[in-house]
Amino acid sequence: MISKKMENMVANSSAIRAMFEEGNRLAQIYGPENVFDFSLGNPNVPAPESVKNAIKALLDEEDPVVLHGYTNSNAGYEDVRSAVAQSLNERFGTDFEARNITMTVGAAGGLNVILKSLLNPGDEVIVFAPYFGEYRSYTNNYDGILVEISPDTETFQPKLDEFETKITPRTKAVIVNTPNNPTGVVYSEDTIRKMAGIMEAKQKEYGTDIYLISDEPYRELAYDGVEVPYLTKYYDNTVVGYSYSKSLSLPGERIGYLVIPDEAADSEKLIAAANVATRILGFVNAPTLQQKVVKACLNEKTDISFYNRNRETLYNGLKELGFECIKPEGAFYLFVKSPVEDEKAFCAAAKKYNILVVPGSSFGCPGYVRIAYCVSYETIVNSLPGFAKLAEEYR
Amino acid sequence: MISKKMENMVANSSAIRAMFEEGNRLAQIYGPENVFDFSLGNPNVPAPESVKNAIKALLDEEDPVVLHGYTNSNAGYEDVRSAVAQSLNERFGTDFEARNITMTVGAAGGLNVILKSLLNPGDEVIVFAPYFGEYRSYTNNYDGILVEISPDTETFQPKLDEFETKITPRTKAVIVNTPNNPTGVVYSEDTIRKMAGIMEAKQKEYGTDIYLISDEPYRELAYDGVEVPYLTKYYDNTVVGYSYSKSLSLPGERIGYLVIPDEAADSEKLIAAANVATRILGFVNAPTLQQKVVKACLNEKTDISFYNRNRETLYNGLKELGFECIKPEGAFYLFVKSPVEDEKAFCAAAKKYNILVVPGSSFGCPGYVRIAYCVSYETIVNSLPGFAKLAEEYR
Repeated sequence: MISKKMENMVANSSAIRAMFEEGNRLAQIYGPENVFDFSLGNPNVPAPESVKNAIKALLDEEDPVVLHGYTNSNAGYEDVRSAVAQSLNERFGTDFEARNITMTVGAAGGLNVILKSLLNPGDEVIVFAPYFGEYRSYTNNYDGILVEISPDTETFQPKLDEFETKITPRTKAVIVNTPNNPTGVVYSEDTIRKMAGIMEAKQKEYGTDIYLISDEPYRELAYDGVEVPYLTKYYDNTVVGYSYSKSLSLPGERIGYLVIPDEAADSEKLIAAANVATRILGFVNAPTLQQKVVKACLNEKTDISFYNRNRETLYNGLKELGFECIKPEGAFYLFVKSPVEDEKAFCAAAKKYNILVVPGSSFGCPGYVRIAYCVSYETIVNSLPGFAKLAEEYR
Repeated sequence: MISKKMENMVANSSAIRAMFEEGNRLAQIYGPENVFDFSLGNPNVPAPESVKNAIKALLDEEDPVVLHGYTNSNAGYEDVRSAVAQSLNERFGTDFEARNITMTVGAAGGLNVILKSLLNPGDEVIVFAPYFGEYRSYTNNYDGILVEISPDTETFQPKLDEFETKITPRTKAVIVNTPNNPTGVVYSEDTIRKMAGIMEAKQKEYGTDIYLISDEPYRELAYDGVEVPYLTKYYDNTVVGYSYSKSLSLPGERIGYLVIPDEAADSEKLIAAANVATRILGFVNAPTLQQKVVKACLNEKTDISFYNRNRETLYNGLKELGFECIKPEGAFYLFVKSPVEDEKAFCAAAKKYNILVVPGSSFGCPGYVRIAYCVSYETIVNSLPGFAKLAEEYR
């Protein structure tokens, strides 16, 4: 009796649940320290001490009726939105005001809000494989059609020639995610410029507006001093979705924001629509205490050295064992080529060594597996002998 | 360039915003203490001290990686769901387990989750006027069709004869909200029994499942010892949506839950669907810190005496002035008959005395206005001279 749309999704989700339960089962048999669960993007770095201090100060200093109350605008507290805008302007030379910021229930909430605001049934949303699999569900929620660009497995930069041919008059949005989940690749400034040029030409050709949605939960996780371009500066119709899940290690608290710049087509209406969508989708407003927390912690930085050590150790370890993998410049994922075409068979083989990884098919890129290295350093180090045996199997 | 569905909603929302801005404008001219804003259901009672203490204890005692991390299941922490189930069982003699509880982003989030899980396009959702206007948007989000039962303005209990004639083979859900927004009426046990009987007979007649969705954010706000029936005990296909917005004065924190009992048709699939819907709609999970807070504060009670004093003072004050109104048994709203047919004209007249109330048309019941008395006692007392002048105008 559940809805037809949900029938398939429930079936798929039981596969994910099965993996989770398998992890629990293995942990019970072998002990949790002997199970190497690389399947989830749940940060293992604790939230900075300043988050705790900020919460305690807010509890002592703010009026609880305001601190825990509905915000006047569904977009969130005016002072928080102002502070976020100001901070972006200082970092990226942008020119945002409070009105350009909508506080959201994480990046996932923000993406739903903007897609609800934009999509008519049958509108097309372009994504570049490999991509975060949830984009398909989010697009489907509003009866949009997901259009995939096939992966460039040399560089994992977007395939721009194919992109150009797949833009149609029904293309309403393009989602990019850089630093990328699942590859860790940062889209280069050159890529972004070319992409913007293609979209501008197509907008003119078709007389349409094509929105670039930049999903940026991993913005702060970039290594070796790599710069992550701020996309509103390259293309007017850009909407940015951000989350503090990774930068402040608050994924469960569901706090992030959307930026809708004045330069975006119909920005005033789009901002109003995002406000309404926040309300009617049932978010109502981003959790209020956490809105105030992120304002207090705007200048806080994640301990990137933790992830970096994991990255270096796992990347070098796997390369030495003969695995093929591009070195990630950001996020906390390695996207490793499966030694056999059917990467699900490879995932199953890894399980024999208590190693849990996610098949690339979940990201529109079969033949690869994703390893989330946001785990403890011990998990990385202790998993390497298992990976060695796994490599041995495929030699 | 925003979606067609959103165009109208944005237009409507600017009416609400206009009222809000009008309130701000009046406050600037006359001082906030001389503006009587009865338009919003934002509790003026602060969260109990135990909420603050619970948060501080959680910050000091829990591992921040767990406290602020994704929950293993999208339905929320197992211990929290267990505690919620246990508490319901103790209070209402039910028999729930953790699996029957899905923690949600408030009641609004929960309603979206359950409607997403249930509705196919064209499915009908029945509501009883007057009803919370957002039900229309929530139903529309999943291409359902809202079917209104006209109000019984004598008792504001549901009109069951009309209800019976409007159930069709496409009826997928019926939403009830008791204690009711906007009337404050509690649906009687007799009403509930009859309603359940009608639905059971129709299920048999059509060979369908009809889900009763009980939206209960006001459950704890019942006066004069009135009992609010727990609906799962009267009808198997009942799903309960709850929120701590009012009971713990945490509306901005977005924390509530759904109960999907084992007795509900297809309950296992429905529970799985709610889990998936929580994820793909972008909630991902209810805010984690607040999940733990409500667990710690399960036995906490709102200071109902505060609202009760407001209720008595305003109800008696308005009756003495000749206004017609049913005495509310729950929630924190008065639903007052407009002295003129066009209640929007009455709202406009009230504004002259700096009194802001919401037209009944917003609740599918024109000719009435809603007064939210979750304000300070001073606001109630000081508004009465304005109401007196308003009454004078219509004598």
